[in-house]
Amino acid sequence: MDLKEKVRVIEGFPKEGISFKDVTTLLQDGEALKEAIDIFKNHLKDKNIDIIVGPEARGFLFGVPVAYALGAGFVPVRKPGKLPFETIQSSYDLEYGSDTLEIHKDAIKPGQRVAIIDDLLATGGTVAAVAKLIEQSGGEVVAIDFLIELTGLNGRDKIAGYDIMSVIDYEF
Amino acid sequence: MDLKEKVRVIEGFPKEGISFKDVTTLLQDGEALKEAIDIFKNHLKDKNIDIIVGPEARGFLFGVPVAYALGAGFVPVRKPGKLPFETIQSSYDLEYGSDTLEIHKDAIKPGQRVAIIDDLLATGGTVAAVAKLIEQSGGEVVAIDFLIELTGLNGRDKIAGYDIMSVIDYEF
Repeated sequence: MDLKEKVRVIEGFPKEGISFKDVTTLLQDGEALKEAIDIFKNHLKDKNIDIIVGPEARGFLFGVPVAYALGAGFVPVRKPGKLPFETIQSSYDLEYGSDTLEIHKDAIKPGQRVAIIDDLLATGGTVAAVAKLIEQSGGEVVAIDFLIELTGLNGRDKIAGYDIMSVIDYEF
Repeated sequence: MDLKEKVRVIEGFPKEGISFKDVTTLLQDGEALKEAIDIFKNHLKDKNIDIIVGPEARGFLFGVPVAYALGAGFVPVRKPGKLPFETIQSSYDLEYGSDTLEIHKDAIKPGQRVAIIDDLLATGGTVAAVAKLIEQSGGEVVAIDFLIELTGLNGRDKIAGYDIMSVIDYEF
């Protein structure tokens, strides 16, 4: 199956000049969803992953089924104020301003082997902040997997040195 | 396994008087996550489910792995402005004010058999709005499954007549 054909590209969302990659059309197709999750699973299955981490909200869509398929746990990374227990935070720069992400401070145990899953690698700012939270918690980032990578934005430069995989590539 | 022991109860979040059910402690335990998803799967596996629908964001956490386990598709219901394609909307009353949810207008095909999955049944307002969106799209709501039900809030009254299942019960 060509999974790229299952993604719907919407020009001008959320603002002019952006070519948005809509993954809902892939998710709603049961065979495409299964194939995508199994690609993540196959990339991770021999890496002894304890925990999958996914950032809110689209990282949840792919991270939890992969955790289930591997028999691993899932830990969410969220925007400030959403997690009910004590958290640690990481901030990162955006085009204009900055953003902050949180993880529960007891979610990752020291020494756990962790894979990050997100829907999209663009400039890499979000995932670099997520990796920092995991490492501050004492976890080891064993792999970083994306459904989609926008190769023209060079996001891999922000997470150089990690084992990175993407299922579908676009230039922008 | 007693899945209820895997849920962390946090008093006073997000505001005084609320006894918050933190499901992140269940999610981060790979065995507990697998057992919870398999309970949903077993409730749904003989119902010929085409699509799992889950509302943002905690409905994503349980809905997508169940879709994967069943070989079904997953359709997200989101807050306004998050879905990039044309949507239909449903509004519902909150304690103070109201809230609105959206679904892509072409996400559910007429006649599809749909199960709704969410983390929590409280007053039932959210899930009743989700059911309405599915039925407006021409889908049939075959089952509604929750990880947690707060039985003292009588949320089942708002979705009477549906096949409802919850994995873990609390009074409040």
